[in-house]
Amino acid sequence: MALDLAGLCSLLPDAHPLPSTEAPVQIHGVNVLELASETDLCFVESLDQAAVVRASRAGAVLVPEGFPAPSEPGPVLIESPAPRRSFFRIAELFAPGHGISGVHHSAAIDPGAVLGQDVAVGPNAVIAAGVQIGDRSAIGAGCYLGPGVTLGTDCVIEPNATIQRDCHLGNRCIVHSGAVVGGDGFGFSWDGSGHRKVPQLGRVVIEDDVDIGCNSCVDRATLGETRIRRGTKIDNLVQVAHNTDIGAHVILVSQAGVAGSSTVGTGAVIAGQVAISDHVNVGAGARVGGQSGVTKDVPPGATVFGTPARPMKDTMRELAALSQLPALLKQVKSQTRELARLHERLEALDQNRSK
Amino acid sequence: MALDLAGLCSLLPDAHPLPSTEAPVQIHGVNVLELASETDLCFVESLDQAAVVRASRAGAVLVPEGFPAPSEPGPVLIESPAPRRSFFRIAELFAPGHGISGVHHSAAIDPGAVLGQDVAVGPNAVIAAGVQIGDRSAIGAGCYLGPGVTLGTDCVIEPNATIQRDCHLGNRCIVHSGAVVGGDGFGFSWDGSGHRKVPQLGRVVIEDDVDIGCNSCVDRATLGETRIRRGTKIDNLVQVAHNTDIGAHVILVSQAGVAGSSTVGTGAVIAGQVAISDHVNVGAGARVGGQSGVTKDVPPGATVFGTPARPMKDTMRELAALSQLPALLKQVKSQTRELARLHERLEALDQNRSK
Amino acid sequence: MALDLAGLCSLLPDAHPLPSTEAPVQIHGVNVLELASETDLCFVESLDQAAVVRASRAGAVLVPEGFPAPSEPGPVLIESPAPRRSFFRIAELFAPGHGISGVHHSAAIDPGAVLGQDVAVGPNAVIAAGVQIGDRSAIGAGCYLGPGVTLGTDCVIEPNATIQRDCHLGNRCIVHSGAVVGGDGFGFSWDGSGHRKVPQLGRVVIEDDVDIGCNSCVDRATLGETRIRRGTKIDNLVQVAHNTDIGAHVILVSQAGVAGSSTVGTGAVIAGQVAISDHVNVGAGARVGGQSGVTKDVPPGATVFGTPARPMKDTMRELAALSQLPALLKQVKSQTRELARLHERLEALDQNRSK
Repeated sequence: MALDLAGLCSLLPDAHPLPSTEAPVQIHGVNVLELASETDLCFVESLDQAAVVRASRAGAVLVPEGFPAPSEPGPVLIESPAPRRSFFRIAELFAPGHGISGVHHSAAIDPGAVLGQDVAVGPNAVIAAGVQIGDRSAIGAGCYLGPGVTLGTDCVIEPNATIQRDCHLGNRCIVHSGAVVGGDGFGFSWDGSGHRKVPQLGRVVIEDDVDIGCNSCVDRATLGETRIRRGTKIDNLVQVAHNTDIGAHVILVSQAGVAGSSTVGTGAVIAGQVAISDHVNVGAGARVGGQSGVTKDVPPGATVFGTPARPMKDTMRELAALSQLPALLKQVKSQTRELARLHERLEALDQNRSK
Repeated sequence: MALDLAGLCSLLPDAHPLPSTEAPVQIHGVNVLELASETDLCFVESLDQAAVVRASRAGAVLVPEGFPAPSEPGPVLIESPAPRRSFFRIAELFAPGHGISGVHHSAAIDPGAVLGQDVAVGPNAVIAAGVQIGDRSAIGAGCYLGPGVTLGTDCVIEPNATIQRDCHLGNRCIVHSGAVVGGDGFGFSWDGSGHRKVPQLGRVVIEDDVDIGCNSCVDRATLGETRIRRGTKIDNLVQVAHNTDIGAHVILVSQAGVAGSSTVGTGAVIAGQVAISDHVNVGAGARVGGQSGVTKDVPPGATVFGTPARPMKDTMRELAALSQLPALLKQVKSQTRELARLHERLEALDQNRSK
Repeated sequence: MALDLAGLCSLLPDAHPLPSTEAPVQIHGVNVLELASETDLCFVESLDQAAVVRASRAGAVLVPEGFPAPSEPGPVLIESPAPRRSFFRIAELFAPGHGISGVHHSAAIDPGAVLGQDVAVGPNAVIAAGVQIGDRSAIGAGCYLGPGVTLGTDCVIEPNATIQRDCHLGNRCIVHSGAVVGGDGFGFSWDGSGHRKVPQLGRVVIEDDVDIGCNSCVDRATLGETRIRRGTKIDNLVQVAHNTDIGAHVILVSQAGVAGSSTVGTGAVIAGQVAISDHVNVGAGARVGGQSGVTKDVPPGATVFGTPARPMKDTMRELAALSQLPALLKQVKSQTRELARLHERLEALDQNRSK
C-alpha cells in the first residue's frame, strides 16, 4: 500500500500540510524518526523538534500546530492537532495481517470440524473434532484446538497457542503465541493419602474483542464457566484461574494473577505482578497498583496498593511514615532518657520541698 | 454413560433419595444449578436453597440432611451427609478422558522409541530416540519428548508440552499444555569478558502422581537431579529451578518460584507468587503466604509471610503496627513539645526555688 | 568421547594426579559423587571429604590442594587449585549438543527461506518466507519462525519456541523451549467505547550470545526496536515489554518483568520476580533485589530493594526498624502515661508552691 500527500490528508481531516512543503511523497509505512526511510511517515509531539525532524530521512512527519515551517529541504510536514493520534490512525493501515493464508496441507483437521469462509490454518496446526471456526479467523502454525472448541469470526490464534476442549471465543479475539486457554483448574481434595484431583468439567467463555497475551493461562471452570467479558485485554504471562469472572474492558498487565472464583469488574486496571486472592471481588473501575496482593474486596472505583492491598493513600502514608521510623526510634529513646531526667529532677524538688 | 436413581445411589452408600421424589431420572453429567439440564446432577450445601433448587432444570440434586421435602414437582432430591463430596464422586465418572486415541500418522516417532500398550500419540507430536513410554500414557498434539525421556504408565502429556532429554516421569503424571520439563538450569560463570554457560548435565526426575501446570518450568540439574516427589501438584506458570528437591504432596500455587538447590518438605503449601531463594530449606508441612519472599530456612510446620518471610504472626503484628505509625509520628511530636513544656516549667520551679 | 588420565591432565595444566593413584581410568562423563559411575569425573572443594570420596564409585575426582592422599583403593584423585573450575572445563566437553541433525522431512520450510550451511531443523518446525538462518544454527521440533526472521550462526532454538515476524537474533543465541520472541507489545488507546489496539509495527533485535529462558516473552516494539544487547542471559518466565533496551551482560532472573520503554544498563543484575515499571532507567552495574518494584531510575552501580525500590541499606534499616515498631508503640503509650504523671506532679508542686 502507498499513500501520497493527498491520500494521507484525506484520511486525516483535521491535518494539513505546512505551506512550504511541496515535495512529492509516497508513504509505504510508519516509523520512528531515527529509523525512518523516505517512504515512512513519522510524528513529533513538541515544538522544539525542528532540528531532529530536519535531520531525519523520513518522507513525511506529523507535527503539532505551531511547528516552525522548514527553512530548508527535508521531510514533508503535516500539521495536526493530535500528531500521535493521527499517526496511529495511518499506522493501522500498515499493520501487517496475521500472515496466514489458506489451509496448509500439513494441518491436522478432523473431518468433523467446521471451518467458516476464508478461514486460514497454518502448518502443523491441529484442529479436533467438533471444532467450529467463524469466517475469516486464522489459526497459526502449531496451534491446538481441542474437541468442541468454538471460535467466532475474525479471530487470530497465533502460532503455538493451545485452546482446550469445549472453550468458546467470540469475534475478533486474539490469542497470542504460547497462551493456553482451558487448562484444568487447580483443584484438589485431600483423600487421606494424597491430593485427589477434583475433575474440572466446566469451560472457558471468552467474549468478543478479547486479547490473551503470550504464554498466559486461562483455566477452565470446575463446573460452569470461567468468563472473560468483551473488550478485555490480557498481557503476557498472566494467570486467570478457574471460575473467575473478568469483566468487560478490563486491563490485566503482565504477570498478574487472579485466583479461583474471584471477579474483576468492568474497566478495572490490574497492574503488573498483582495477585488477587480467591473469592475476592474487585469492583468496576478499580485500579490495583503493581505487585499488590488483593486479599479482600475492592470497592468500585477505588485505587489500592500494597500487600495486603489497602487504599493507595493509606499505603503511601504508611510507606512515608516508615521512612521516618528509624529516626523515630532514636527520638523515642532520647525521650525516654529525657523523661528519666525530668523524673529525677522532680524527685529532687520533692525531696527539697519536704526537707 | 448414564445413571438412573438406583445407579446413583448404589455409588453413594450414605445417600438416599428423599421420599416424595419418584420421577424417573437419567443422569448424563454434572453441573451447577444455574446451567443444569434435566440430565444433570447438581448439589447444594445449605438448607435455605429450596427455592433455587426448585427453579432449576436439574435432573437430580444432592442436598444436605434435613433439606425441606419438595412440595411441588422439580428435580429429584438425594439426601447426603456430604453433598459436595458425593457430587464429586459422581463427577469423576463423567470426567472426560485425555481425548487422544491411537497413534496419529503425523506424529514423528523415532524408530528407537519404545511405546507401551495402548499408548496414544496425538497429531504432530515428536518423540525422539530412546524414549520409553509406559502403558496407557497419552502424548498430546505438538508435544516434544527429547532423547532418552522415560514415562511411566497412565501419564497424560497435554498438547504443546515439552519434555527434554533424559528426564523421567513416574506413573499417573499430568504435564499440562505449554509446560517445559528439563530446560537448562540458569547457571553461568563470569569468564572476564562474558557470562559463560555452565553446562547443565543433570536431569529432572518426577515421581508418581505429580501434576505440572500450564506453562510451568522445571529445570534440569547442573549435575545430578532436580526431583519432584510423589503426589506433588504444581499450578500454572510456576518456576522450579535446577537442583531443587520438591517433597511429596507439596502444593505450589500459580506463579510461585523456587530458586536453585532449595528444598521444600513433604506437604508444604507454597501460595501464589511466592519466591523461594536459592539454597533455602522449607520444612515439611510449612505454609508460605502469598507473594512472600523466603530468604532463609523455614522450620517444619511453620507458617510464614512477607518479604523477607517471617512467622506469619510477627509479620501481621508488624503490619498492624505499621498502620498505627502515621498517628504515632504525630503523637511523638506532641510528646516532644510536652517534654519541652515540662522542662521549662521545671526550670521555672528551680529558678523560683533558688530565688 | 573418552579421556584417560593423561588426556584429562593435558586439558588442565594446573592440575596433577596425586602420586599414590595409578589405576588406569577412562572418563566418559561428569557427575556428582553420589550418582557417579567408574567412568565419571567428579569434584570436591573442601579437605574434609576424604571419606565421601573413598566411598564413591567415581572414576576420578578433582580435589583441592592439600587433600589427604588415599590410603586405600578408590577413585583417581587429581589435585587442582580450583577443582570446580577445572571440573566445569571438562564438563563442557561432555555437554550434549542440541541433538538436532539434518532437516527433518516433516518441517514446513517456505521455499523463500534461506538456510546456511549445516543448519538443522527438527520435525514439524515451521519456517516462513524470507527467513534467513546462519550456518550451524538449529531449529527444534515444533518451532515457529515467522516471515522475515533472521538468525545468526550457531544459534539453538529449542523445541516449541516461537519467533515472530521480522525479529533478528545474532550469533550463538539460545532461545529455550516455549519462549516467544516478537509478540505484540501491550499497547491500547481508549476510543470512547473500547480499548483500541495500537498497531505494534516494530521488531525485536537480539544481539550475540543472548539466552532467552523457557516460556519467557520478549515483545516487539510499537515502532523501532526492542533490543537485548550482547551477552545478556534471561531466565525462565521473564517478561520483557515493548521498546525496552536491555544492556549487554545483564542477568534477568526468573519471573522478573521489565515494562515498556524501560532500559537496563550493562551488567545489571535483576533478581527473581522483580518488576521494573515503564519508562524507568536502571543504571549499569545496578543490582535489584528479589521481588523489588522499581518505580524510578536506579543510579549506576546502586543496589536497591523493596517495593517501591530504594537503596538496599535504607530498606533494610526500615525493615529492622519495623520489627521494633510493635514494642515502640507500647513504649510510647507508657511514655504518654509517664508524661501525664509528671504533669500532675508538676501541677501539685505548683499548687503547693502557690499556697
